[in-house]
Amino acid sequence: MSAIRFEIQKQLKGKLGRVGKLHTEHGVIETPAFLAVGTKATVKALTPEHIASLGIQGILANTYHLYLEPGEDIVQSAGGLHSFMHYDQPIMTDSGGFQVFSLGEAYEGKISKLAHDEVDDDHPTIYSKNFSLQQARLARIDEEGVTFTSHLDGSTHRFTAERSIEIQHKLGADIIVAFDECTSPQAPHDYQKEAMERTHRWAKRSLAAHRQNIEAQKKQGIYGVVQGGRYQDLRKESAMFLSDLLFDGYGIGGSFTKKDLDAALELVNSILPSEKPRHLLGIGEPKDLFDGVERGIDTFDCVMPTRIARTGQVYTRSGKQNVLNASYARDFSPLDEDCNCYTCTHFTRAYVAHLFRSREMLGATLASIHNLHFITSLVSGMREAILNDSFENYKDSFFARYNA
Amino acid sequence: MSAIRFEIQKQLKGKLGRVGKLHTEHGVIETPAFLAVGTKATVKALTPEHIASLGIQGILANTYHLYLEPGEDIVQSAGGLHSFMHYDQPIMTDSGGFQVFSLGEAYEGKISKLAHDEVDDDHPTIYSKNFSLQQARLARIDEEGVTFTSHLDGSTHRFTAERSIEIQHKLGADIIVAFDECTSPQAPHDYQKEAMERTHRWAKRSLAAHRQNIEAQKKQGIYGVVQGGRYQDLRKESAMFLSDLLFDGYGIGGSFTKKDLDAALELVNSILPSEKPRHLLGIGEPKDLFDGVERGIDTFDCVMPTRIARTGQVYTRSGKQNVLNASYARDFSPLDEDCNCYTCTHFTRAYVAHLFRSREMLGATLASIHNLHFITSLVSGMREAILNDSFENYKDSFFARYNA
Repeated sequence: MSAIRFEIQKQLKGKLGRVGKLHTEHGVIETPAFLAVGTKATVKALTPEHIASLGIQGILANTYHLYLEPGEDIVQSAGGLHSFMHYDQPIMTDSGGFQVFSLGEAYEGKISKLAHDEVDDDHPTIYSKNFSLQQARLARIDEEGVTFTSHLDGSTHRFTAERSIEIQHKLGADIIVAFDECTSPQAPHDYQKEAMERTHRWAKRSLAAHRQNIEAQKKQGIYGVVQGGRYQDLRKESAMFLSDLLFDGYGIGGSFTKKDLDAALELVNSILPSEKPRHLLGIGEPKDLFDGVERGIDTFDCVMPTRIARTGQVYTRSGKQNVLNASYARDFSPLDEDCNCYTCTHFTRAYVAHLFRSREMLGATLASIHNLHFITSLVSGMREAILNDSFENYKDSFFARYNA
Repeated sequence: MSAIRFEIQKQLKGKLGRVGKLHTEHGVIETPAFLAVGTKATVKALTPEHIASLGIQGILANTYHLYLEPGEDIVQSAGGLHSFMHYDQPIMTDSGGFQVFSLGEAYEGKISKLAHDEVDDDHPTIYSKNFSLQQARLARIDEEGVTFTSHLDGSTHRFTAERSIEIQHKLGADIIVAFDECTSPQAPHDYQKEAMERTHRWAKRSLAAHRQNIEAQKKQGIYGVVQGGRYQDLRKESAMFLSDLLFDGYGIGGSFTKKDLDAALELVNSILPSEKPRHLLGIGEPKDLFDGVERGIDTFDCVMPTRIARTGQVYTRSGKQNVLNASYARDFSPLDEDCNCYTCTHFTRAYVAHLFRSREMLGATLASIHNLHFITSLVSGMREAILNDSFENYKDSFFARYNA
């Protein structure tokens, strides 16, 4: 008996997309759903009550960051992540693989999962154009795991599949993720294949480590992560390999070019067992969300809504806008006319712009609330649209106004 | 008919202290009360809902800062401060005098109103040991007003009594303050006298400017500010002079040494008309609050609770503590065992310490909530104690534990 249970309510006609309910120890996630990112056991600039009030159904926290600070033992002593951060809805932790590998040669590359993304401290990341394991700066991979240097204090650490799962057991999220290697989309085929096969061996070891912990198994579901970079043959092989393992769900990992994403999702999700939930790791701009939902993704996480919020960029029905635009200074309308979030129903563009100009923390809070509400509502709207057989209409009418 | 009305409910036996109700356009302040500082139309790191939930009855915003950013015209166009910042309880604005004058030679002195205070951007301040008008860096005083240089962009501006009142009319607070010169406690008697006499002339002009604006008068009360530095003869003269003007209430201004404060309050408040409310400008550590209440202060404002919160310092029943203390890392008790604030009832020292170590904004929010609740409750406790004839007991039992 798995700690999580996925129930499909309706299929998107002629597509891989579907509506469902993901049951966890801390309640149900109605899918498709967007999970907010709470990297260090806090969704930046928001209280847990803010998160709940936004209709956000769950969050994703980062194993790498929490392992370094405050350390998984402190979180466990606090009673696990839910208790530590005072959040009683579903939590997912990633495997730490993405952050660890992005400490490699990629560290100073400042490129993130999709070409249009920006970078900040959530992901002390990324790959360079000529990925080369030998040049790795802060991480070294071997068959057993990865040895890495903390971005905080330069100390040396080591993650293996078993260690990642042990840490995630202590953190106590509802959904944990098998240890995986997240490669660069620029990595050549032979390296991608080698990394993928290693990820598969780690997946088996992660699963075994999880199955050995009876208590954890009762409370935590585990996802395997499909890799393979931009190569369809590898994506296919990875999806097939992982389908045979008894994971409770699947993550789709790796960095993508925008072009590769759709093809990879289409292929992978047509192979993965349809009755299991699927999470797209770390990607979630509006276009990606529509593309992902249509191609069978059930849950998403992405730092983008809160990250851009902290720089004053807000989503509106017509596209992203910067509150520091001169026109906002005397604009007493809400950030988005059509929005009913706390920020838009209580504050004006002029006020939010003032907060950003004055470098007041409330600016980041109000913009984060708005952006998360915008993205969360967009995805819950997709859910409604599938239920009402109007997904295409919903999508068309969104992009008729939205300038990506 | 004044826009504000003060009602005394009970006198502290044998002392100047009292309990009252200050009626304003935006509700009643039950006194004695602590007003939170919302320098730039936001109490740093908190939403208006946080403020209300803390039992805070009103805030003080800064005329100088709001004049520079976003400008009083934008605030007026937004419908005034209450509407601009979505806050419907009483608001007070200061005259801008303190900030403007502290741009003077004092600018780099980094000393604040009381010797034990710290300094941050709320008050780009302060006096130096050898106050000298000639050496003034960013402000120049003349009979009509003061010409000063913006700390933001170096542009030149001018405040006069009439201009300060005009700005405050546009900001639209419930209580506004006559333009005054805040001097250094180190200034010699002859300069203090000269400055005080100028402040008195500005007080008359401020009052006249206010009385000419019929609309503003209906909604906004005006306080005159007693100055005179550390000289009792000047404090007496100032209190007597201002008592004769028909202000709606009085502010006690100036920088103090700890020693001078009690004597000045005792003297000034025995002279000021007892039926009018009295506000102590910018001072509010626990000891000051007890001393002030006992000596007839009705309302206080101080940046200290939120300023120290942002550096991780929190009030506890036994004194201030720093959450970055090593012992906090594994301490799963609340910041203060006796506290029933949102932070203390939902989060542990370990979590708050983690947020500060991780430089997460929520840390400042949670610490600010706690500190403001601590100080607000302390003052409302004084109110209750006076009503119950137990002020001395309340004070003694607080200081039996509190290590200032």
